[in-house]
Amino acid sequence: MKTDITARLEALRSKMKADGIYATVIPQIDPHQSEYLADHWQARHFMSGFTGSAGDLVVTLDKALLWTDSRYFLQAAAQLEGTGIVLMKDGLAETPSMNQWLGDNVPAGESVGIDGMLFSHSAVGRMAESLAANDITLRTDFDPVEGIWNDRPALPQDKIFVHELKYAGVSAKEKIAKIVESLKAKKLDSMLVSALDEIAWTLNIRGTDVSCNPVATSFLFISPEGSTLFIDPAKTDDAVTAYLKEAGVATAPYTSILDFLAALPAQKVLVEQGRTAERICNALGANTKYGNGVDPIPMLKGCKNKTQIEGTRSAMERDGAALVRAFMEIERIMAAGEPLTEIGVADILVKYRSAQPLYFDLSFDTIAGYGAHGAIVHYSANKESNATLKPEGLLLVDSGAQYFDGTTDITRTIAIGTPTAQEKSDFTLVMKGHIALGTAIFPAGTRGAQLDALARQFLWKHGLSYLHGTGHGVGHFLNVHEGPQSIRLNENPTPLTPGMITSNEPGVYREGVHGIRCENLVLTVPAFTTEFGQFLKFETLTLFPFDRNLFDLSLMTADEINWVNEYHATVYSHLTPLLAPEEQEWLREKTKPLECNA
Amino acid sequence: MKTDITARLEALRSKMKADGIYATVIPQIDPHQSEYLADHWQARHFMSGFTGSAGDLVVTLDKALLWTDSRYFLQAAAQLEGTGIVLMKDGLAETPSMNQWLGDNVPAGESVGIDGMLFSHSAVGRMAESLAANDITLRTDFDPVEGIWNDRPALPQDKIFVHELKYAGVSAKEKIAKIVESLKAKKLDSMLVSALDEIAWTLNIRGTDVSCNPVATSFLFISPEGSTLFIDPAKTDDAVTAYLKEAGVATAPYTSILDFLAALPAQKVLVEQGRTAERICNALGANTKYGNGVDPIPMLKGCKNKTQIEGTRSAMERDGAALVRAFMEIERIMAAGEPLTEIGVADILVKYRSAQPLYFDLSFDTIAGYGAHGAIVHYSANKESNATLKPEGLLLVDSGAQYFDGTTDITRTIAIGTPTAQEKSDFTLVMKGHIALGTAIFPAGTRGAQLDALARQFLWKHGLSYLHGTGHGVGHFLNVHEGPQSIRLNENPTPLTPGMITSNEPGVYREGVHGIRCENLVLTVPAFTTEFGQFLKFETLTLFPFDRNLFDLSLMTADEINWVNEYHATVYSHLTPLLAPEEQEWLREKTKPLECNA
Repeated sequence: MKTDITARLEALRSKMKADGIYATVIPQIDPHQSEYLADHWQARHFMSGFTGSAGDLVVTLDKALLWTDSRYFLQAAAQLEGTGIVLMKDGLAETPSMNQWLGDNVPAGESVGIDGMLFSHSAVGRMAESLAANDITLRTDFDPVEGIWNDRPALPQDKIFVHELKYAGVSAKEKIAKIVESLKAKKLDSMLVSALDEIAWTLNIRGTDVSCNPVATSFLFISPEGSTLFIDPAKTDDAVTAYLKEAGVATAPYTSILDFLAALPAQKVLVEQGRTAERICNALGANTKYGNGVDPIPMLKGCKNKTQIEGTRSAMERDGAALVRAFMEIERIMAAGEPLTEIGVADILVKYRSAQPLYFDLSFDTIAGYGAHGAIVHYSANKESNATLKPEGLLLVDSGAQYFDGTTDITRTIAIGTPTAQEKSDFTLVMKGHIALGTAIFPAGTRGAQLDALARQFLWKHGLSYLHGTGHGVGHFLNVHEGPQSIRLNENPTPLTPGMITSNEPGVYREGVHGIRCENLVLTVPAFTTEFGQFLKFETLTLFPFDRNLFDLSLMTADEINWVNEYHATVYSHLTPLLAPEEQEWLREKTKPLECNA
Repeated sequence: MKTDITARLEALRSKMKADGIYATVIPQIDPHQSEYLADHWQARHFMSGFTGSAGDLVVTLDKALLWTDSRYFLQAAAQLEGTGIVLMKDGLAETPSMNQWLGDNVPAGESVGIDGMLFSHSAVGRMAESLAANDITLRTDFDPVEGIWNDRPALPQDKIFVHELKYAGVSAKEKIAKIVESLKAKKLDSMLVSALDEIAWTLNIRGTDVSCNPVATSFLFISPEGSTLFIDPAKTDDAVTAYLKEAGVATAPYTSILDFLAALPAQKVLVEQGRTAERICNALGANTKYGNGVDPIPMLKGCKNKTQIEGTRSAMERDGAALVRAFMEIERIMAAGEPLTEIGVADILVKYRSAQPLYFDLSFDTIAGYGAHGAIVHYSANKESNATLKPEGLLLVDSGAQYFDGTTDITRTIAIGTPTAQEKSDFTLVMKGHIALGTAIFPAGTRGAQLDALARQFLWKHGLSYLHGTGHGVGHFLNVHEGPQSIRLNENPTPLTPGMITSNEPGVYREGVHGIRCENLVLTVPAFTTEFGQFLKFETLTLFPFDRNLFDLSLMTADEINWVNEYHATVYSHLTPLLAPEEQEWLREKTKPLECNA
């Protein structure tokens, strides 16, 4: 494998020399700016051997370097060993950014060549600016893997399917009409949509191109005169084609998108610069109208309709019931002293979830981190790391599923054995933040970054913190991470709006010791209106108890204890109808009031 | 007066016609982007009759309109009556922005003319973009008052004075050296400073050009080869000139700035586009290097040194002692049944503050708002509005002073008579937010917008809110409002950094009923360092009790009650040494523990 990588890099360098390119970047991205990629776009993996979900490879005529973040420092170091590729630890103060490094290390007068089909217009702009300051040319017509990646997987060809109206709630026709209306209000003629979840939402179609993200590789051109879906012909059957036609959407081959755009008559075509590839913008030429937050789809998609909300409520009940069965089995195995590994835990969750009605897939690879593994935020057990649970310490389980009527995402941290005082204290401080955020009431217009500290305040007072966001948007039978809202340290101008589903997941990670995260999904709903305007609040959607054994009641207010007890009562009443008697009994014990030990 | 205004507008229109200008803007601003203006730049007042501290006048060939915000809707409506000037209520959904209105109402092909010495480069950029989209030309060489404002006050000519090193803590020479070092690190050659408080801070000079803001009208050019202060020759005497020379700063006439900049040899001159007039940038031409947050002065000025902090602590003691005497006198007058008005309250405060050592001026016009007047956020009593206090309701007093060793700004709300349940509940919710923010602990790097909701959360839960910021930076014997930090709803990228002094002033305003605001100044200080990094907290600097009669203990936690009691004990111990025996006795009563009625 290591020799393969070296040979590939050498082949790339020959190609670069022939093309007059001094340096190139092989990014972890696709033409749709997706977070997770179909195999066809795993070029960074092919060229470096590194399998992490984030990280860009830079190859120059005499060097190769890979930038990735702290989640992957250990894994990347191991996978890059012997390849000659230098690991650049992104986010550390001493590590220059990739653009900065290129500016400082490519000689003036030389060229950097990248594939403009992968980099967004915004990303190209930032890179070009940084390089131009050092008299370096940026070319966006260089495909670094063409002619080298000979067994490259084909473009995805799996069939797409219609997401039925009884789940989606609003028809594709209505959605397109709303989008067109919004374009007209902004004096725009049409729009090119690249983001796969935006296309799937707009047309009520789903696919299987990307694991856990039920999207289909395609582009969508929307205009009042009719829209066109650019998709591989193998992916649509007659029924789907007829369905699209009825919605006013023609189909065309995926690979014809650039020619189509280049041939458009003069008009104002909206593209979002951060979500649209540079070559798409180039093909549109003078027709391109860059929007920054103008794209109406993220907000329409983010605010779920009644059908989606009711579907999600139902999915939460089925998901919670599956979790009751799974955690009962985990407890039974541990009580019997039988061996159980992290992968074993993940398998048990899949077994019960996949048996539920309307189950389609997981919404992401289950994270089951035992002990110190819980402190690795995006830990995913593999054969080498797979720990066996002992009757002590904490188990962090972050998991979720795609159901036709909704997407789930839940994290619970449980004590295996008797928890220590520190485990209970850490857990309780995380829960106090979870509760403070979950019970917040705030004026309409409030942004996530304004509320984020509510979830962190108690940890901060104890000198603890976590670096990930507190909340991400969640799709409806779509990507488990979606915008436009977020609740995090960084500013995001999107207000939390009724109908949005967002995670509430504070945590704390003691390196080498344990990790704790407590995550529910919450729905933004109206609270009340006063002379000071409209106020909003969160309604918790997720239905599964927190581990009663981990609460340190001496750290909690009466209101916080009441919140846990009321939440547990809600969980019990919602899940009981789906459970067998012994499962009901188990849940009754798990949802007993916190101060009641009877 | 109304006829004067009409005549002035007609004269302006003749001038506009002669100059080929269709519309002009007379803004409330000076060439230094100051918040408060010397009389020389009160052109908006001269042309409209409106005296508010914010609001821009637009004059076209056939219309005149004035944009101002909600603080001034009533006042502007009264002052504009009979002038033909239309009041445009800024901030209401139905009111277009000034730039939008100009774009929509000036015919294509026509010109808008403004004085480029008043509008910042950023403001001109935004206006030009908006107008260009409607094929309207923006000219920045049109002075709308020249030839019309014949009795215009001269440029300020009051003498400046040196702010002694024993108060400033760091010499001008050292500050300039630090600034130059920062410029070099960014590969910049020099810098043009327009903001008056930045100049005053850098050179340790002060002036009396603007009421309550001890700054001096000037520009400052900083370069490693020597710096130049552009200031009216009448403002400097030999001693000051010698002082500046010793610090490496030459002087030149204020009016020579543009010629000086235009004649500079080729170099990279830093200007902040939002704080520098368009004509300054034009004079610099190709030498201009725009910075956005690159100017090192705001951060250096914002983080106070030890001398400044110790001086502020001392000023707070003198200010608190003056307030003890003032509020004792207010109580005595009310108890005696003698008449007391809002202006009377303000006068009493000035009387005792101005008797304190090192007193220089007020830091802003005292706000004393009784009853419903307290709900007008920037209320300033005048002869017409001046209310007489009755033995009921709330009195809001927001006041502060400039001492040579520090600037104060404090708001207290007190009950005159027995408070109602709503008055106590509103006050207590405000105080809970004040305490939550004041006791926050947060990681280094945290921004004000992240903490703002801590101060609002309890009000929000009761359907209450306030629209102003929770905290602004405060200068050291300088402007009471200064950057770069803030604690408010809006994003501000500046982290709260040790040494910064910021206000903590949540409030609630029931229109027509009462206003409540509770304000202390707090200093950012290190809290502790853990494996999760450095944490910071606030230390309260202001020393004066909150009204014990307004707390509703049933709404407070034990920790909150303890905070008030400990704060009051601190106030008592710090102020007692400055007080006469009967004043000490008064303060002892006012700072008794909340739950103690003995």
